[in-house]
Amino acid sequence: MIAARLHAYHEPLRVESLAEPAMTGPHDVIVRIGGAGLCRTDLHVQEGQWAEKSGVVLPYTLGHENAGWVHEVGSAVENVAPGDTVIVHPLVTCGLCRACRAGDDVHCENNVFPGISVDGGFAQLLKTSARSVVRLDPALHPRDIAALADAGLTAYHAVRKAAALLYPGTRAVVIGAGGLGHIGIQCLKALTPAEIIVLDPSEEALALARESGADRTVRVDGSHVETVLEMTDGRGAEVIVDFVGERGAIEDGVGMLRQAGSYFVIGYGENVDVPTIDIISREINFIGNLVGSYNDLAELMTLTAQGRVTLHTSTYPLDAVNDAMADLDQGRLHGRGILVADAG
Amino acid sequence: MIAARLHAYHEPLRVESLAEPAMTGPHDVIVRIGGAGLCRTDLHVQEGQWAEKSGVVLPYTLGHENAGWVHEVGSAVENVAPGDTVIVHPLVTCGLCRACRAGDDVHCENNVFPGISVDGGFAQLLKTSARSVVRLDPALHPRDIAALADAGLTAYHAVRKAAALLYPGTRAVVIGAGGLGHIGIQCLKALTPAEIIVLDPSEEALALARESGADRTVRVDGSHVETVLEMTDGRGAEVIVDFVGERGAIEDGVGMLRQAGSYFVIGYGENVDVPTIDIISREINFIGNLVGSYNDLAELMTLTAQGRVTLHTSTYPLDAVNDAMADLDQGRLHGRGILVADAG
Amino acid sequence: MIAARLHAYHEPLRVESLAEPAMTGPHDVIVRIGGAGLCRTDLHVQEGQWAEKSGVVLPYTLGHENAGWVHEVGSAVENVAPGDTVIVHPLVTCGLCRACRAGDDVHCENNVFPGISVDGGFAQLLKTSARSVVRLDPALHPRDIAALADAGLTAYHAVRKAAALLYPGTRAVVIGAGGLGHIGIQCLKALTPAEIIVLDPSEEALALARESGADRTVRVDGSHVETVLEMTDGRGAEVIVDFVGERGAIEDGVGMLRQAGSYFVIGYGENVDVPTIDIISREINFIGNLVGSYNDLAELMTLTAQGRVTLHTSTYPLDAVNDAMADLDQGRLHGRGILVADAG
Amino acid sequence: MIAARLHAYHEPLRVESLAEPAMTGPHDVIVRIGGAGLCRTDLHVQEGQWAEKSGVVLPYTLGHENAGWVHEVGSAVENVAPGDTVIVHPLVTCGLCRACRAGDDVHCENNVFPGISVDGGFAQLLKTSARSVVRLDPALHPRDIAALADAGLTAYHAVRKAAALLYPGTRAVVIGAGGLGHIGIQCLKALTPAEIIVLDPSEEALALARESGADRTVRVDGSHVETVLEMTDGRGAEVIVDFVGERGAIEDGVGMLRQAGSYFVIGYGENVDVPTIDIISREINFIGNLVGSYNDLAELMTLTAQGRVTLHTSTYPLDAVNDAMADLDQGRLHGRGILVADAG
Repeated sequence: MIAARLHAYHEPLRVESLAEPAMTGPHDVIVRIGGAGLCRTDLHVQEGQWAEKSGVVLPYTLGHENAGWVHEVGSAVENVAPGDTVIVHPLVTCGLCRACRAGDDVHCENNVFPGISVDGGFAQLLKTSARSVVRLDPALHPRDIAALADAGLTAYHAVRKAAALLYPGTRAVVIGAGGLGHIGIQCLKALTPAEIIVLDPSEEALALARESGADRTVRVDGSHVETVLEMTDGRGAEVIVDFVGERGAIEDGVGMLRQAGSYFVIGYGENVDVPTIDIISREINFIGNLVGSYNDLAELMTLTAQGRVTLHTSTYPLDAVNDAMADLDQGRLHGRGILVADAG
Repeated sequence: MIAARLHAYHEPLRVESLAEPAMTGPHDVIVRIGGAGLCRTDLHVQEGQWAEKSGVVLPYTLGHENAGWVHEVGSAVENVAPGDTVIVHPLVTCGLCRACRAGDDVHCENNVFPGISVDGGFAQLLKTSARSVVRLDPALHPRDIAALADAGLTAYHAVRKAAALLYPGTRAVVIGAGGLGHIGIQCLKALTPAEIIVLDPSEEALALARESGADRTVRVDGSHVETVLEMTDGRGAEVIVDFVGERGAIEDGVGMLRQAGSYFVIGYGENVDVPTIDIISREINFIGNLVGSYNDLAELMTLTAQGRVTLHTSTYPLDAVNDAMADLDQGRLHGRGILVADAG
Repeated sequence: MIAARLHAYHEPLRVESLAEPAMTGPHDVIVRIGGAGLCRTDLHVQEGQWAEKSGVVLPYTLGHENAGWVHEVGSAVENVAPGDTVIVHPLVTCGLCRACRAGDDVHCENNVFPGISVDGGFAQLLKTSARSVVRLDPALHPRDIAALADAGLTAYHAVRKAAALLYPGTRAVVIGAGGLGHIGIQCLKALTPAEIIVLDPSEEALALARESGADRTVRVDGSHVETVLEMTDGRGAEVIVDFVGERGAIEDGVGMLRQAGSYFVIGYGENVDVPTIDIISREINFIGNLVGSYNDLAELMTLTAQGRVTLHTSTYPLDAVNDAMADLDQGRLHGRGILVADAG
Repeated sequence: MIAARLHAYHEPLRVESLAEPAMTGPHDVIVRIGGAGLCRTDLHVQEGQWAEKSGVVLPYTLGHENAGWVHEVGSAVENVAPGDTVIVHPLVTCGLCRACRAGDDVHCENNVFPGISVDGGFAQLLKTSARSVVRLDPALHPRDIAALADAGLTAYHAVRKAAALLYPGTRAVVIGAGGLGHIGIQCLKALTPAEIIVLDPSEEALALARESGADRTVRVDGSHVETVLEMTDGRGAEVIVDFVGERGAIEDGVGMLRQAGSYFVIGYGENVDVPTIDIISREINFIGNLVGSYNDLAELMTLTAQGRVTLHTSTYPLDAVNDAMADLDQGRLHGRGILVADAG
């Protein structure tokens, strides 16, 4: 089969021929990829930022945001059958450790992360497990929802945690209305009665934010922190959902956070660097967010089926993966980039 | 009356004569101080660290950790009467804002903080409000429990929040077994089934930790982070309760924190300075902690009455306040320092 | 002033002249009533069902669902001023007990319940307290929102508790789309992503339910339990919100409840009568619901200001109170009945 | 192998020879039983109370409270190996449905309940699954902890849910200090700071309650409800944990429940039969409790390993099963009855 693989850090991926993945366990599921989302994390992987954390051995196939059709199943698989349309949870998990049993399978003690630590979905076929596939309405096309498998799931997961803090009259400030941000806004709208204030430097992104459900939008222009404080009685917002995490977002975000408020970290790049005296005197919290659980993904697919979450995507053939990565890196990619290996 | 007052930052307090506080509202309560705790925050106030945050006007009376006997009450006060033994919640709150009604009176929109922003309890008399006094068994002497009003309350508050995360088999690492730490350990023991691991550079403090309920103690000696990792399956603890917040505590603490774990910030001094990629890839949280609510204080007094929380204190006459502050600053003060103005 | 008073159980109210309420404490607030909602509980009071529970002494003025304009305030009142438009929380509470401080002021140890245990708002003036008034936009007319003070607040309170259980893909079954029910449906829509299924014997009520946000409606016709089971994979709903509590509602409701589901009791009349073996083998819960807290009321007023909760009301002059009660009793009252004493 | 089987309702079990269970799936685990607990539910099964609910086909082997040593494992089992000492979670679950992934595997959509719906552990060998076995310290003997697999797990599960409501100063009333009750008391002691009040008609049971950690004990003698009200400021307890559920326990329990309190139903027999007006005016809750999850069982085993939960048991050889059941039925069985098939 064809796959896009990383042979060396800081170099383009190579689209090349590769042996098909082989079944090895009774719960294996091999998925024919219908769409694989391109993520800023793929750029970070290429730059080597995850080299040590993931322990991956080069070369390998990128792609951790996948949807497709079931191609082959192991002997003990009963929840899906060949031909089923599925979205793929990014992790392969054991189902036996405490985390897997406690709704927190992302912290599975034995997890494997295709596309990060082993071969992923920038390919015609992906090997995953019965525990990782969510069966979908066959009317859905994988390329239209693949980006929910990681970008959408991460946004949903953070919003679901934040939702417990958001009652009528509260405000959620969303920093960044790009690929994750515009999904996060829709999730906030679906799950909470909070007023949603969205910040972005781009007017185009703010227009997308309004379409996605933002109640108010603020252009990042130097006076944006003051503008948000004015919108929030001078006290700031109960919740900040930061999809950027760099270029000054964190300092801004902390400046817009209310006493006893919570800052949800999703975007990454810079440091959270805050004096402890401020953390204690304002009694504020910083909440880390990784991708969501399998149940989170199933819930997000429900919102999608109900039409409450929709995606903006741009499609590329798999062999144009390096063009897509360049477009993403240089801000030319509108919506989420989706790689398609087959006509489908 | 006599009071210990700050006239200028970086200078000793002056013990001087001052007019008694006057009743001005129907809910005022004037307390004759039986004991006033000395706190590291008093040193920080003297150094000017709180000057801007508190907006206080010099000179004023320090002391935010008070207990005594009711001296006089306003016309609408029904919950206490002159002569009652009381511990004083550090804040004067309005009772009408959302926070006051929601169990979060520490974030009262109209709060006043005697000892920080107005005259406090390093004096013979303190003016507070009916909302701030917890009536106690008259057998208790104020000097023996005064330190629970702020130090104890802060430790209890943080532990009560942490307790929701601590089930059998989890581990809580306590950094610092001093004035707050040894109360925090007792609170962890009373509220949770977690294994309690305590770190401190002082063997004497670790001995107090063991008396207070620590299951394991670790001397801070350079290999302490590794030691804790060994004690926690190489994965770290679900909860870190940091009563230090400086001298490397935070970096150590983050190194001992498990995936999906929570770091409770109580001690202050340095910055939390952590790469966002670590916060999201490990999905860890930083939780700020201020002093507890009135209900927290009432709960803590229940634990005290049951004998589950006891204090180590050293008593000084009020006019030796600068000696006490020097002892605290230079590490010569064992247990919590308590200033006593009257024979009582 | 004029007031509608109960002199004897099972007899009509008497509309008669009465001395105006007098200020007695520094936090008293006297409200000129602009609208007072009529409630099924007023019928139950007249029938004597609350005689023992409330300990009220006849004669007294009914009316526990009030809004109006501040008429006079006590010496210590700072949160409202004469002329302010206000909605009145049904209870007068102390602000000092644990419940008042914990967001649960409905269980204030010292509460007084105007309209139930002392004189209420079927009158020109009502005496309440500074703690009980929520200031509103002066553009609002009290008669248009009075019914939110109790009916709306009760529905909101139950829904807010249920909301914690309702994630995408879950179902909430609402039994009864009358005065409380149609508010409850709007609150469910505002606070949760659940699918809302509404049952009522009246097609007119079901039409109102659909306008209010019901996703599916089911006529109570004998096969309704089966219909709901079919709509819920044969397993029943995660949450039942029962605004009826009589005429077979409970048996039906339990039959539509999923394993591990929760039954919210709001309407009353009959008994919950369920074998313990069913409660434990299905692990189901029954959750009692009284009126909401002051903070709940403030949140509900936010939803109202945002246009997410609107009311259907019918207005009566105060001296037609017995006609209104008869209309309510005999099912002729559409929406919530509002009594108006003054032109306003 | 030898097994004790039910051939007809209302008749004694027959101890007879039976083919050994056969491996059929890759995750099967066959356990050599070291101890099987006898439960009041076994009497109810024999009486036919579960016939319809379980859908079981007679004859079959009873016994749902099992511990032993791993005898044989399926091809995909990696978490245990032959010879391991294990306690067996009572349910066989799928690991793929929402409930299994959400920490609620007791409500697995595909669960099988050995001893209730298929062959159980009153036998030499039991077939279960890799998901259901908790590996233990080999120093433990199965007969000493088998009763924790169901009785203990049920008590622990209910207490863990109640613990969230129990802060310092609250009271938990435990009804019944028998097999489950004495474990529940130990769990309350380990998990909460609440005052524990225990009721039982037997002085011997109350003595065991005190040993287990009860702060106060009350003999059920006709004035016990009043006694408990006196112990709780006349207001009742925040939490009732009812291990009896018959012989008047429920009416008593509701009479001892505080406003806004929660009644945990564990024992069964009679109905919860309470007027809805009482449920809403007191805003009380009834919480059903089934057996706990796998994670609950692992937590309980931690408490056991720490010495915080210990059991009182009486051992019978498997072929004396009908004597043991008669002893249990007639109140002659002290502690939990454990059946032992092998010398071990």
